[in-house]
Amino acid sequence: MTILDGKATAAALKKEIAQAVQHIKDNGGKTPHLAAILVGNDGASETYVNSKERDCREVGMNSTVIRMSAAISADELLQKVDEINRNDDIDGLIVQLPLPRHINEQQIIEAIAPAKDVDGFHPLNVGRMVTGLPSYVSATPDGIVELLAHYNIETAGKHCVVIGRSNIVGKPIANLLALKATPGDCTVTLCHSRTRDLKSLCLQADIIIAALGKPEFLTADMVREGAVVIDVGITRIPTGTENKFRLVGDVKFDEVSLKCRYITPVPGGVGPMTRVSLLKNTLKAAKKEIFG
Amino acid sequence: MTILDGKATAAALKKEIAQAVQHIKDNGGKTPHLAAILVGNDGASETYVNSKERDCREVGMNSTVIRMSAAISADELLQKVDEINRNDDIDGLIVQLPLPRHINEQQIIEAIAPAKDVDGFHPLNVGRMVTGLPSYVSATPDGIVELLAHYNIETAGKHCVVIGRSNIVGKPIANLLALKATPGDCTVTLCHSRTRDLKSLCLQADIIIAALGKPEFLTADMVREGAVVIDVGITRIPTGTENKFRLVGDVKFDEVSLKCRYITPVPGGVGPMTRVSLLKNTLKAAKKEIFG
Repeated sequence: MTILDGKATAAALKKEIAQAVQHIKDNGGKTPHLAAILVGNDGASETYVNSKERDCREVGMNSTVIRMSAAISADELLQKVDEINRNDDIDGLIVQLPLPRHINEQQIIEAIAPAKDVDGFHPLNVGRMVTGLPSYVSATPDGIVELLAHYNIETAGKHCVVIGRSNIVGKPIANLLALKATPGDCTVTLCHSRTRDLKSLCLQADIIIAALGKPEFLTADMVREGAVVIDVGITRIPTGTENKFRLVGDVKFDEVSLKCRYITPVPGGVGPMTRVSLLKNTLKAAKKEIFG
Repeated sequence: MTILDGKATAAALKKEIAQAVQHIKDNGGKTPHLAAILVGNDGASETYVNSKERDCREVGMNSTVIRMSAAISADELLQKVDEINRNDDIDGLIVQLPLPRHINEQQIIEAIAPAKDVDGFHPLNVGRMVTGLPSYVSATPDGIVELLAHYNIETAGKHCVVIGRSNIVGKPIANLLALKATPGDCTVTLCHSRTRDLKSLCLQADIIIAALGKPEFLTADMVREGAVVIDVGITRIPTGTENKFRLVGDVKFDEVSLKCRYITPVPGGVGPMTRVSLLKNTLKAAKKEIFG
């Protein structure tokens, strides 16, 4: 059994990105620049945005965080998005979600210029991804594909069962792995809350991607010998000690890992890969790789 | 066994559309208007465009066909698309494919205003469809969903196996049927040329959608008793008599139909439904249902 070390893989990829950024600078190019809009004072959002800034710094990219009050109107936010869309110095723009309830998230997402949509949430990028065109792929599915690629895991002709049909993980990874691509060319089964006989489907899978957000849902009796298991779940479980918690994935790691050929740990699996994907997309944006 | 009569269903839907168009006119509204651009003199394309014009006439819509020489430049075509995008009298625009080889089809598709993209090929519409947002769904997948709905075929929790991963049929129908919707909520397996053990997957399917373009590919030994079989294939097979041919689907109808609960014939199944979908989308465009 091999543990898919997302932390080490992400570190290696970050190094490559840092070199690419340095190469751009050495050739007199503009430093890649990521802008993040943070609305309100949500603690988790604050943490995410801070780590994105830190990641940028580590690979030599510029970053800007625009903080706006939770009381802002949708129009004011749209204006800010538009301003950044037209700012040639900024290559990538993310609007940290969730937004306050009075703002229509989808409207904001669709206001971001697709060429700067490094989160890959704009439906234009989703549609391009599904049809196999160059696109920004969102962080989690992109991180999974990178991890499979890094470990040279064969996917062509394999049966991949995806559990969970969210717009940010399940649907895009199902579409990505069904593409005529490497990694890709999988037979993909997309399962969800309405799926009957999930166990029997999982037992047929060469690759299982668990992305339903239920701690330790996938147990050993659902996994066949030699499977590849990718755990996207990450739930905080209180330890009993005040303010202490442990992170638990969607996979019962201790028992499932004994049957796997490859498995991701939680934490240290898919998580660190997602952070690198944003940097990768920002680099692509700076190089105008997707939209020319 | 029930034959899913696409011809009769399409006729019924067309009647409903005609009534809706009449209702708009009776209330002093603008007559819905579909424009089609036809480049070059391809015989099949000519036939398709003619039948689209006829369909429009039959439901009381206006239609315009813009004929352009095969020698036209991409820029000239883009200019024409832009002109129609800005023409308020035209609600829907299709560019008949294929285009001459010197023109990049994808560039043309993406130049159509998403709000007028009644073929549903623009990646923005594809992305919106995949994420469950209101969108123009392309003709074949939309026609399949309409047919399932018309016959009240239960889909929730059913296992649907889609054979073929084309951008115009396999991928969109797989995504549509996996949505939390009715019809929808299927567990969907997307199969293709790289799939191993297709037979065993098909034998598990409650619903099979055959869209690979191989005449009589799906045989009785691949189908379980009581399945729903949707045949998207349509291949012309010469009969031996000069210039005569018969239309053959991807399903070996004579033997498969004996095992099915529902099955579409070829011709007269999915085919007629696809033509109605374009009218449905044009009506939606006129009513500004998708993009407001």
